[in-house]
Amino acid sequence: MVILGIDPGYAIVGYGIIDTSKQNMVVDYGAITTPKEDSMPTRLEAIDSSLKFLFEKYKPDVVAIEELFYFKNQKTVIQVAQARGVIVLACQKYCGNIFEYTPLQIKQALTGNGRAEKAQIQYMVKAILGLNSIPKPDDAADALAVAICHSQTSPTLNTNRL
Amino acid sequence: MVILGIDPGYAIVGYGIIDTSKQNMVVDYGAITTPKEDSMPTRLEAIDSSLKFLFEKYKPDVVAIEELFYFKNQKTVIQVAQARGVIVLACQKYCGNIFEYTPLQIKQALTGNGRAEKAQIQYMVKAILGLNSIPKPDDAADALAVAICHSQTSPTLNTNRL
Repeated sequence: MVILGIDPGYAIVGYGIIDTSKQNMVVDYGAITTPKEDSMPTRLEAIDSSLKFLFEKYKPDVVAIEELFYFKNQKTVIQVAQARGVIVLACQKYCGNIFEYTPLQIKQALTGNGRAEKAQIQYMVKAILGLNSIPKPDDAADALAVAICHSQTSPTLNTNRL
Repeated sequence: MVILGIDPGYAIVGYGIIDTSKQNMVVDYGAITTPKEDSMPTRLEAIDSSLKFLFEKYKPDVVAIEELFYFKNQKTVIQVAQARGVIVLACQKYCGNIFEYTPLQIKQALTGNGRAEKAQIQYMVKAILGLNSIPKPDDAADALAVAICHSQTSPTLNTNRL
């Protein structure tokens, strides 16, 4: 099963693709970035077309996306949520099989501790995927973490379908 | 000039199309609604395809969209902002000429009073467009209001481009 994990954002969208049928699960990871000089519609369009490219290249069977957590800054939450709407729509159009996990579920799946520190999650991403170093940027590591979380969640018990 | 006004939302997206070159400016108005039984990705997809239909049918020269105001309920703001991201992306892809107005600017443009009541705005929409009754639902009247606001804003002074 090819899983595309996404850490949603506006300036930076982390992505990570794993293939659970392979010994060396990692297929690709990285981040889509949008320049802050560009207008909001242009940045949303860039996110959409970069995701389209990833879907066409890797043809994931399923997408696992991190749930938006709540921010103190309401302007930021609006910007990130607008980008997340575009991301979810792209996942729906190009894949249609979308699951959503909270940060707590992701931490629990990777470390057994829902309150694990960021460094511990990154360490586990590196260990589980047999990488030589922690994936950079952090958004890519977070995206791989949500993909791993989905791979470890029983399909029959999964209530995280979006 | 054909202007598509949009009142963004998640369960209901108001739209109103006016043609400023015609005596009888109103072209069409209404609301896109998404059933709450549907999944979030399905609802976002429905908004996107309904907007695509409107763009293809009416070929607006410009889109005027209401700026998202801040909510007390953060869950609601996330849902509406996700839908607004999808709406802005559709406007960018199908038109590319997008302007954004705050509720205060819209009230000011229609009534000369930035603190006007909703009923007064609706009355002015009816009066300016020469309609027999106030457009329903409220979301459609709000969308016509933002379209009228754009038509009354000098292009040379306009700093509301998104």
